[in-house]
Order: sequence, then structure tokens, then C-alpha cells
Amino acid sequence: DGRMGLVWDGENAQFSSRVRAKFNLSGETDSGLSFGGSFRVDQENYRADPEGRSAAHGTAGSVYVSGTFGKLSMGDVVSAAEAAIGDLTELGYTSGEFASNPEEIDFLTGDGENEEQGPTALYEYTFSGVNLFASMTDGSRRDCSASNVIVGDLECYDFDEDDSTDVAFSLAAGYEFGAYNVALAYSENGDGREIVVGGTAAINEFKIKGFYADYDDRDLAQLGDFEYDFDDDESTFEVDYDRAYGLSVEYAMANGVGIQGLWIRREVEILEGFGDAAEDTYDAYGIGASYDLGAGATLAGAVIKNELFADNETRADVGIKFQF
Amino acid sequence: DGRMGLVWDGENAQFSSRVRAKFNLSGETDSGLSFGGSFRVDQENYRADPEGRSAAHGTAGSVYVSGTFGKLSMGDVVSAAEAAIGDLTELGYTSGEFASNPEEIDFLTGDGENEEQGPTALYEYTFSGVNLFASMTDGSRRDCSASNVIVGDLECYDFDEDDSTDVAFSLAAGYEFGAYNVALAYSENGDGREIVVGGTAAINEFKIKGFYADYDDRDLAQLGDFEYDFDDDESTFEVDYDRAYGLSVEYAMANGVGIQGLWIRREVEILEGFGDAAEDTYDAYGIGASYDLGAGATLAGAVIKNELFADNETRADVGIKFQF
Amino acid sequence: DGRMGLVWDGENAQFSSRVRAKFNLSGETDSGLSFGGSFRVDQENYRADPEGRSAAHGTAGSVYVSGTFGKLSMGDVVSAAEAAIGDLTELGYTSGEFASNPEEIDFLTGDGENEEQGPTALYEYTFSGVNLFASMTDGSRRDCSASNVIVGDLECYDFDEDDSTDVAFSLAAGYEFGAYNVALAYSENGDGREIVVGGTAAINEFKIKGFYADYDDRDLAQLGDFEYDFDDDESTFEVDYDRAYGLSVEYAMANGVGIQGLWIRREVEILEGFGDAAEDTYDAYGIGASYDLGAGATLAGAVIKNELFADNETRADVGIKFQF
Repeated sequence: DGRMGLVWDGENAQFSSRVRAKFNLSGETDSGLSFGGSFRVDQENYRADPEGRSAAHGTAGSVYVSGTFGKLSMGDVVSAAEAAIGDLTELGYTSGEFASNPEEIDFLTGDGENEEQGPTALYEYTFSGVNLFASMTDGSRRDCSASNVIVGDLECYDFDEDDSTDVAFSLAAGYEFGAYNVALAYSENGDGREIVVGGTAAINEFKIKGFYADYDDRDLAQLGDFEYDFDDDESTFEVDYDRAYGLSVEYAMANGVGIQGLWIRREVEILEGFGDAAEDTYDAYGIGASYDLGAGATLAGAVIKNELFADNETRADVGIKFQF
Repeated sequence: DGRMGLVWDGENAQFSSRVRAKFNLSGETDSGLSFGGSFRVDQENYRADPEGRSAAHGTAGSVYVSGTFGKLSMGDVVSAAEAAIGDLTELGYTSGEFASNPEEIDFLTGDGENEEQGPTALYEYTFSGVNLFASMTDGSRRDCSASNVIVGDLECYDFDEDDSTDVAFSLAAGYEFGAYNVALAYSENGDGREIVVGGTAAINEFKIKGFYADYDDRDLAQLGDFEYDFDDDESTFEVDYDRAYGLSVEYAMANGVGIQGLWIRREVEILEGFGDAAEDTYDAYGIGASYDLGAGATLAGAVIKNELFADNETRADVGIKFQF
Repeated sequence: DGRMGLVWDGENAQFSSRVRAKFNLSGETDSGLSFGGSFRVDQENYRADPEGRSAAHGTAGSVYVSGTFGKLSMGDVVSAAEAAIGDLTELGYTSGEFASNPEEIDFLTGDGENEEQGPTALYEYTFSGVNLFASMTDGSRRDCSASNVIVGDLECYDFDEDDSTDVAFSLAAGYEFGAYNVALAYSENGDGREIVVGGTAAINEFKIKGFYADYDDRDLAQLGDFEYDFDDDESTFEVDYDRAYGLSVEYAMANGVGIQGLWIRREVEILEGFGDAAEDTYDAYGIGASYDLGAGATLAGAVIKNELFADNETRADVGIKFQF
């Protein structure tokens, strides 16, 4: 994919462009088993960045096998919750990136959470409108590959010795009936717990999506593009990520013009007595417009206010994006 | 592309080989707008090298749209000056790399200059032999993407707070008549100013190219592969990169044999009184020969003397290069 | 290629998956000369990892030309010894990686050894069942490319000034007669010397391979995935890598089921008088099974005990691997 345009970062207008390519590889065995894998070129960089995610080491890109038994994927897959519910609508030619992706729901597992446990496995099974999803990590933070073995000792490297190495998992079920879809998910990751409900409705030119997520004992969270460790502030006060909910609406006209709206709220609970003084709700909302030029090219722009930013909360983008 | 052969580095003969691949992606909308992008596989490495150039972040590779209005590109594009005038002839199977690319003219903007401002935009328009070019950066060194936001504060990262964040731009015009081509360019980058004139002539088997570049207040320059910061030596004496000029000649026979010659001079002005003792002119010159094997394979070799090197100024290469 | 499955690291079961892609590029000149190159996407990362191996700089991937004169390759090629003899049989869906690749013979040159000398060249020539191989590096640890030049001085960077910069080379010859193959190789790398003999026999459903390697003055060795510098322990006692030998057997049934076995022994000589107390032999052995699903998909699993590991010597894997 590619894109080019202007981003207003709240203080300056900036050029912003990119070009990427993705490999989609697949095959089918004699017995009718499908298999495949996919990754972007920029996800292959293990040697240069051993601590980061890499398709060659199962923490970017993914592989799958599918057959009558369903579909089993492994690698940097989404959690069962995200597979069932997904995210809200993307706005602008940078797909929300100019405002730190407020359309992304902060799922407790998968999608960058819990990477130190290595690849995540995701299983999907569908029958008569019911979609079932289960995902899990292996619960081990040990890395016994040569590149991470402790030199001299040849012992496996343990990312977190104190960690009880709980399996992080997610279970979800969805039901489709006509133009409607509802889904429910439950996930665990360390002490954290997550319950998410979500639904979509496609009514004429409108597509509406909503979700409600309730978190328990969650002190580390990926809010959009930012990773918050609420425990970091322990010396001053203790904070829990409590719940999030939001709504997005898409309106698509036959002539290729579309309008999109988005609102998401994240509620943080400050556990100390004096906590009332601090901000405990982060809202993000925005509106976007797009025009489909055909052949995979789309003109798009959006304005988003995201209260996560310390300053320059209101940002905008306008440009063109391509699918190659 | 690929290549293999021997390089004489002035002291030793060394094996030198490489293999690379480039993606060229394109499409066309229903209304006749062309678009596309290109990057090499080795240009996708943002995550591993966040400070470096990356196609996924607009500082390597590029995307474009073109139509009756001309062509607009964004990313790691060349400046208007370089688009109009280009570089001198490449020598040897490593295309001048073995001697620090003396064929590259040190344009003031684009091509690696001013990367901290992010992507450069280049606009090109052609009518009846006249080629017009304009390029610019956004003049902002702030980076508001999540990966560069100051952790904790969520404030945008400013590469240079004191910088007046001037837009770096370049304007150029060229005129083609038969086998001749002339071009003129003016560029600004911070305090620096650049005027370049260049021309090519194709006469029978000969192709001749010359240029003259005049710089003003230029204290940082990319000379071939090397980045000089003349201001670094301020404690001892002050130096300005003043002007450069050069000439290259190609001679191509019908049987696939070609001979190439190159000469370039860079003049540096030492502003202090005692400066006369120091070297103030850097010459580079060389001669090469090539033989076209067909199907994209070429045997080539060259000898170049480049006074930029502190020692081993005379270097040579001989080998085979491939276009895949 | 891609793969997914479970690895037992001796203490925990872990998910392990990956997906990669390789470019194979080739052409043929008008005069019948073949040329080409190949590299994996994850091998293109010079900019992010200048000290590491990169296809764009000749230390990963390779290019070749071949014709009636034989085949000449350059880049990250194997040594003549490895080209003639190869490695033992790979076990499991991770191809032995889960147990630090005990199937890999620790050849003295090529395949990661002596990288600082840049690309290795390999020449191969075959006539009437006789295969001749010769490989060498350029014997120079100087790097004169701009990216490694010492900034300010513009002098070439010398990786090891005291090094006598010996050429590392390897010579090998093999002879094939029917289903049998024998090969002999001699290599030098610095002070180190290597003599290896190897042979394979294909008898009905069985394929048997054996080798014997004798080393002289070898103090640095790549044992499987681990790099040992026996000289590091000089303050306490001096150790030499003395010899290695091993055997592998493959049994392939017509129905796609295969069974593999592997045994390798490495002998280390402890030169001090009190050395008898230390371990001086490292064995690795294992057994694997596989089932060919067709279309490039294979189910495979293996159990290997590798005494190189300080703990958890017995490891296992089971999963599925794909060729795309």
C-alpha cells in the first residue's frame, strides 16, 4: 500500500507519505487442507532488531492451516476478542494514525500485548451464522533459541523470572443474522480480566458499530498507539484502566463519497483518595470524509480530537491512499 | 540487481558483491489518474532503525500520482535541481561506489539532505520541450507519530528546538531541443543557497554532460558518500563549500563496448587568514570501460582518483553487474 | 517458507512459528552465460545493522555466473568443504533449530565464519562424476566503503590491525558413482586447519550419511548455533577443538511417512594438566518422524538430546512446515 498527503499535528502542517508491500503466500495439500502465511516486507528484521517483532520469529506476520476442522493461525495474530469484534472505523488517509489510532479498541491480549511469550495461536470455527474464536499464548517467557541464550552459560533466557508465566487467553463468540452481528468476548492476561461486547448493523447506506469493554485489574494498557503502564506512577498514586466504550458510523453514497464519524471514551479509576483532581476520562472523537477514485485509490481526510495528547489534541489529515 | 567482482581499495584487492530487489507498484484510476510507488527491500527497516530512512515512513522509496496536471511525488525523492540536471556518468561495476561516488553532484536539498523534516514533495510538469520542477519539505522538524512521541509526556518530539524550521525548497527548469538539453536550478536549505546549471549533448556515439554549481553559506555538505560539517571545525577555522563543476563523457560502440570518463572539482573557501595553507580544492577523475553481455548483464571496470580520501586516493574495480 | 507448532525446550512447551520469503532472480546472456542471485527478505537490513550480514553488502544472499567454465558464486556462500560434503539430516518441523542445529557440521570456513573479510567466492566445476570445489575470502579485513570509513579521517576501517589477514580458503573434491558419493576437503582459516571426509549412500528406502572432521589449532568454532571462543578461557586453561564425526540415516516410505536418525560427536582437547576433570566430548543425537501432506506441506516432529546445553539437554518439537 502507499499514501501521501498532509497531516496537521496541532501546530504545523507536515508532509506524510509511505509505501509498503505485503507477501501473501498460500497452498493446498492433496487432502484439501489449505495453508498459507503473510507478512509485510518491513516486518522481516529480526537480525537488526532482536528485541522487536519479526515475521522470521513468529512475532510479526502469521501462518495458518484451515480445513473442515476450522482455521488455526499462529504468529502475530489478533486475540479471539479482536477477531470477533474488530475495531471501530478508520478515519482519514492515514487511517487514524495521525491522531494515534483512536479507532483501535484496547484489547487485553494479542495485537502487541504479551509479545515476550512469543507467537499467539488463534482458532476459528464457523457454523450456521455462529462464529467461535479461541486464542492463547504459551504462558512461557523463556527463550531457548540460540540468539537469546545467555552466552557462556548456554542457558535459556527468561524474560521475567518472577513471572508466574500465566497463559494469556481469549474466548469469543459471535452471531450473524442478516445485516446484524453481535459478539461477546472474555480474556485473561496475567491478573487482568476483560469482558467486551460489540455489535454492528448495516442499514441502507449506514453502517453502525458499537462496543463496551470492562476491565479488571488492568494496569498496563495499549491506548491507541501509546503504551501506558499505570503501575509506573505507583509512588504517587495507583490507577486502574476500568472501562472503554465507543461508537462509529459510516455513510457511503453510491457515487463513491463517504462520511465517517467516531467517538470513544476510556475511563481510568484513580484509587487514591486525592485522585479526584486528576483527569479520569479520555475521550476521542472525529469526523472524516472520503472519495473513492477507483482502482484502489482513495482521497480521504479527517479531523480528530484525542484527549490522550498532552497538547495539540485536535489534529487533521488530508491526502490520497493507494492499494497496490 | 546484483553484482560481483574485485575492488582495489588502494592497498588491497577485495571481493565485493551484492544482491537487491526493488518493488515497483502502480495502478490507474477510472478517471485516468496514474499512481504508484517504489522501494527496495532493504529500505523497509523502520522498526529496527527508527532514526534512519524507511519506506514505511516516507524517508526512503516514494509514491506518486500523475495526470494531465503533471506528476506529484512524495517520499525520498530527489530535489527539483537533481530531477532537472541529474548526476554525471557512473563508472565501474560498482557504479562509482568503490571511489565514494564522485559522479554524484552535491545538491543542496533532497537525496538525503534534510531528512529530519520527513518526506520531500516533488512536482514535475512538461510541455513542448520545457520541463518544470519544484520540490519542498514541510519546514517542520517536529515528529508527532507515536513512535517518536516523548514517552510520559505524549508531546511531539522536536528534532531541533532552536531551528527556525525553514522550508527547504528547489525550483528548476529545463529545455530539450533535439539531442541537447539545458537546465537551471535555484535551491534554499536553511541559510544555504544553490544555483546550478547543467547541460547534455548526444553527438553520434558520444554523450557529454557538464555542470556548474555555486553555493552560498553552505557549511554542511554531502560530498559523494561523505557528509562534511564544515562548521565542526569552527574552533580552528571557518570553511564554506563554495562551488563545484565537472564533466563526463560516454562513448558507446555498436558492438556493446563503452568507454567513460569523468572529472569533478569541489572548491572550499577557508575564511581565516592562515587558511591558505590548507587544501581548498578536491578533484576526482577517472576512466572506465564496459561490455554489454546482453540480458541485463554488463562487464565493467574503472580507475578513479578521488582527492577526498586521506590516503589511497587511487582506486579501481572490475566485475560483472546484473539487472534482474 | 512457513511453519507452526510446539517446541519442548526441556522445561516448557512453547509455540513457535515463522514466515519468510526468498527472492530467486536469474537471467541468461545472449552468449549462453547464466547469472542470478538469491536472498531472503530478512537478509536485507544493512542500514539497520551495519555490523551484521546483509544481502546488499555481500554478506548474506549470493550472486553467481555459470557457463561451460563452471559456476562462480560470491556473497554468503558455503565453503568448498560444505559444498562438497553438506550437513547431516535435519530433524523436526524446525529443521533441528529447536536443539541448536546439531545436524550442522562445524566447517572451518564459510557459512558465518570469517565474515569480517566480506564476501566469500566459491567456484564449482563438474566432469564425468567428479565435482571440484574451491572457495576463498579476500584476506583483507579493511573496509573502505563510505559507511565504515573513520569519520573525519576518511581512512579505511581495519577490523583487526594485528591480523596478518590471511586468506581463508577451502578446496574439495567429490566423486559420484551410482547411488554413492564420497568427498574430501582441506581448509585453512588463520592458524586453523581442517580435513573432512564424508560420504552418502542411497540403498532402497534408506539414505545414510557420515563424516569425519579433523581440526588443527582451532580455537574458535561455531558449534551448531553457538559460537565458542576456546581462547577466551585462556586465563584458566587452554582448549582446542580437535575433531568431530557423525552419522545420519533417513528412511522414506512410499506413503509419505519418513523416519530420521542423527548422531554427532565433538571432541575438545583440554591442554592443561588438570584438564581431565572437564568435559571433553559433546554428543548430540536424536530421532524424528515426518509425514508429507503434499503441495509442500509436511508434518514433522523430533526428539534431540544435545549435550552442548548446560541444562534441559533433551528437547522436542512437533508441528507443520510449508514451502511456498
